[in-house]
Amino acid sequence: MIDDFMTLVQARYSCRDYDPDKPVEHEKLIQCLEAARLAPSACNSQPWHFTVVESREMILKTAKCLQESGMNQFADNAGALIVINEEPAILKAVIAAKMDSQSYAQIDIGIAAAHICYEAASLGLNTCILGWLNEDRIKQLLNIPAEKTVRLVIAVGYAREEKHYNKKRRPMEEICDFIG
Amino acid sequence: MIDDFMTLVQARYSCRDYDPDKPVEHEKLIQCLEAARLAPSACNSQPWHFTVVESREMILKTAKCLQESGMNQFADNAGALIVINEEPAILKAVIAAKMDSQSYAQIDIGIAAAHICYEAASLGLNTCILGWLNEDRIKQLLNIPAEKTVRLVIAVGYAREEKHYNKKRRPMEEICDFIG
Repeated sequence: MIDDFMTLVQARYSCRDYDPDKPVEHEKLIQCLEAARLAPSACNSQPWHFTVVESREMILKTAKCLQESGMNQFADNAGALIVINEEPAILKAVIAAKMDSQSYAQIDIGIAAAHICYEAASLGLNTCILGWLNEDRIKQLLNIPAEKTVRLVIAVGYAREEKHYNKKRRPMEEICDFIG
Repeated sequence: MIDDFMTLVQARYSCRDYDPDKPVEHEKLIQCLEAARLAPSACNSQPWHFTVVESREMILKTAKCLQESGMNQFADNAGALIVINEEPAILKAVIAAKMDSQSYAQIDIGIAAAHICYEAASLGLNTCILGWLNEDRIKQLLNIPAEKTVRLVIAVGYAREEKHYNKKRRPMEEICDFIG
């Protein structure tokens, strides 16, 4: 086993400057979705659906649903937008009896999103996970059924210029306790 | 950039048979937590805290909080248990004005959990994400403050015997729509 996940972790950043003239290969998008498809989820419930927007025309229309108060203007230039919808989760009876069946679905959506971002990084693509969106508008535009919840949109593309950020994070001692 | 995230995705599985005689190196656990520390989150809110249980005595006590109706017996043999707590998220004002500030915290917890599992896989460790837990009991045992929510426990260790599963997942055409 090669220890290079950390290399990907260091390389990934939230890219907000995509090259509009460098389209994302459809095959690479499929590969990103394949990684998400194989993600683990509570009781293997797989409570997700992905709507993948690839044409410039539809990217611009979808981006509009992410843009308010000047937010997320860069989404216009993404090579693709992957809309992640949460679906009703069906859990094993033993767990379902103890928990609201949707309890883990948001966590599972996060896990799947991470799969997309790291497969993308692995393929030399950049990504940005976008949480704010006008859900009604995006559902109407993309014919997403009412019973689904649109949770995230992931912008995918090639950065105009590759950046290397020092990640600003809380220090380890603040986020961890070790119990012997 | 090396395309081997997919290799890790294929290799990772939910391990339910740990070798109790093969402890997990503390340095490897630190490496897993470092990956989680560097995970992206909504507005970089980092709404997480990790309580890492390493001694056999405390692993057995913590495992009891995960075991009811015969569930998760294998947790006794894990080399470590990483308890993931959700913390109050502080979001940028522009987003906070539009959303309940905890809206993204569960998604962020899922993203951080994925970081732990893949860094572990990258280091030759096995993992299992456990969602069901007796929260009151685990908080009391590990002195986790009342205002935190215990979301997940990740069992980490070395499999007694390395397994290769064919992952059972919904087919791509069922989980994806492509919009040109």
